[in-house]
Amino acid sequence: MVRHGTSLGIVETKFFAFAHPPHELELEGGSRLGPITLAYETYGKLNARRSNAILILHALTGDAHAAGFHEGDRDPGWWDNMIGPGKAFDTDEYFVICSNVLGGCKGSTGPSSVNPKTGRPYGLDFPLITIKDTVNAQRHLIDHLRIDKVLAVAGGSMGGMQVLQWVVTYPERVASAIPIASTASHSPQQIAFNEVGRQAIMADPNWNDGDYYGKDLPEKGLSVARMLGHITYMSDESMGSKFGRRLRDDKQPFKFAADFQVEGYLQYRGNNFIKRFDPNTYLYITKAIDYFDLSNGKGLAAALAGIKARFLLIAFKSDWLYPPYQSQEIARACKRAGVDATYCELNSNYGHDAFLVEVDEQTHLVTHFLQKATKDLAAAHD
Amino acid sequence: MVRHGTSLGIVETKFFAFAHPPHELELEGGSRLGPITLAYETYGKLNARRSNAILILHALTGDAHAAGFHEGDRDPGWWDNMIGPGKAFDTDEYFVICSNVLGGCKGSTGPSSVNPKTGRPYGLDFPLITIKDTVNAQRHLIDHLRIDKVLAVAGGSMGGMQVLQWVVTYPERVASAIPIASTASHSPQQIAFNEVGRQAIMADPNWNDGDYYGKDLPEKGLSVARMLGHITYMSDESMGSKFGRRLRDDKQPFKFAADFQVEGYLQYRGNNFIKRFDPNTYLYITKAIDYFDLSNGKGLAAALAGIKARFLLIAFKSDWLYPPYQSQEIARACKRAGVDATYCELNSNYGHDAFLVEVDEQTHLVTHFLQKATKDLAAAHD
Repeated sequence: MVRHGTSLGIVETKFFAFAHPPHELELEGGSRLGPITLAYETYGKLNARRSNAILILHALTGDAHAAGFHEGDRDPGWWDNMIGPGKAFDTDEYFVICSNVLGGCKGSTGPSSVNPKTGRPYGLDFPLITIKDTVNAQRHLIDHLRIDKVLAVAGGSMGGMQVLQWVVTYPERVASAIPIASTASHSPQQIAFNEVGRQAIMADPNWNDGDYYGKDLPEKGLSVARMLGHITYMSDESMGSKFGRRLRDDKQPFKFAADFQVEGYLQYRGNNFIKRFDPNTYLYITKAIDYFDLSNGKGLAAALAGIKARFLLIAFKSDWLYPPYQSQEIARACKRAGVDATYCELNSNYGHDAFLVEVDEQTHLVTHFLQKATKDLAAAHD
Repeated sequence: MVRHGTSLGIVETKFFAFAHPPHELELEGGSRLGPITLAYETYGKLNARRSNAILILHALTGDAHAAGFHEGDRDPGWWDNMIGPGKAFDTDEYFVICSNVLGGCKGSTGPSSVNPKTGRPYGLDFPLITIKDTVNAQRHLIDHLRIDKVLAVAGGSMGGMQVLQWVVTYPERVASAIPIASTASHSPQQIAFNEVGRQAIMADPNWNDGDYYGKDLPEKGLSVARMLGHITYMSDESMGSKFGRRLRDDKQPFKFAADFQVEGYLQYRGNNFIKRFDPNTYLYITKAIDYFDLSNGKGLAAALAGIKARFLLIAFKSDWLYPPYQSQEIARACKRAGVDATYCELNSNYGHDAFLVEVDEQTHLVTHFLQKATKDLAAAHD
């Protein structure tokens, strides 16, 4: 039986500032960054043993606001159907933390933040960052919350990459891992899609080498990047049932206006994106994703060797952006490395978006997995 | 045994002008267009009975130059591996014609042609055209060549759409049909990819509502559209074996330069495209493709009812732009309509590009199919 749970109600984003000079965070690329702010939210209560914390990590265009409602908002956080009282990540039982990424534009330090050395937004002076840099920053947040070991790290898409990096970089800090619709490294096709998005942004003259803050934004370029992204998040089937070849009701006289409903939908999503996302962040984060390679040149099984965390890997049949074979590769590497991993392939038509919408089956899997992880962790304590 | 044949050597593009006012071509959209020039090439010799003609039709960015070499060129036409003495479309036996499309930019009338009413390039004053308009124009070319019935119409991708339209619009003029890696209508996902390409072009300020002839071209926009196109022409597998995650040797200092080989390849293909293709043609032809719907609201089997032509349908397993299920739909409709159709699904890793590179198996299939079609046509004559 799948429980549907209730809403968290009103929540607020918090901000954790650290790496104040001269104690800046050393980045994988060799440069140093500080001070750093990470935006995060927490739901539920940390227990006395500080053993019920779950870290949720978001995808490319997500943020720290994973569940509940911000004051005055009509829509809840991006994974509200999975996080809350009685839901998969049950806030009656667990203390759920969702952290934004480094390089982001939703309250965390990124290219749109003010560079303390110049008093102006970083723009392209912001250093290239990696998934590991983000995970290192998040570890400071977990330290700040005085949590020795999180019960689980979970996330879909780029969130899944952070999950994998957490387990490999801080194996002693993670009891279990739930990477969903993700990969241990981008294939050239995945790099290629990101690169076309970046090129669309940089082709916009308003981009101006990243120096557009307070001026006209590269709206059109970001919109094209977002439209392309949306195609890859859906599946051929889900677009077929949502739009078919239906034309828009309000056909405009312009020859190359949006005639088909699918065109109108993509344009709408593209045009709205600029209101909530920074184009430079899109560049930095897609680069971090493209460079992410868990195997780090030594093979995936070697990278996972010695990991004690238990894995729940979830993939979706119609997800062609992060196809199931990529999660299967991680599952096989876990087996070779002696890591306890369960791989589940769900029969969804929603494509990559499935991790955001397939609530029932994911709830079922996650609920049982977290119960097992809780028992494991309690046994280890006793 | 597959024959490999020899080269046609030097060939030339020819031009057929018709629809001189007041006898303009009436377009599906209701407007009239004229005069019209179609660029075309022919290879081999028409026999005395004029019964050995094969019409070859090209894909989105193709042209009339299907085989042989233009004087001074290093590369042959786009289907040279399939057309020539001893090849699949054997010019020792057949008279092969390849016609450019209406709206094109390779010698045929299109948005870059001079509008006789203004003395300036049409730009967006060029009327919207359809696949059927192109087929109607090509029928004038076939009339001009005094061919009553072509032995075969063949083409891949958009070429396959023209093949299907030829058979349905002029059933008495076609003895057999070879649509390859094609579809009877675009799915919303296919429309979506075209729309992102169009939006990339129109987002370029140099596009200037299509009025850029003699000025700065919308190079960056067209380049982004082409890069996206290239991703959809290849497969995940073929990108994997061609590029993997290999980095470029000449890493540039710019943060968002092409680091991975796949990025360098796409940028190279994108930047070169502007030298040979008109951005407005990209808009017009992708729109024609998106609007193409062979079933025309009455169902595919009904559209094919009464067709005497024999079909050879070819699809490729790794083609995710025009997936095999779309060719299977046509094959099933042929069966329901009592049309003789053979469907072959080839096990290629090359994705949509397979129709341009999988020579051996296609040669085998086409050679035998054309022999049968030749016998049928001779029997009908006798």
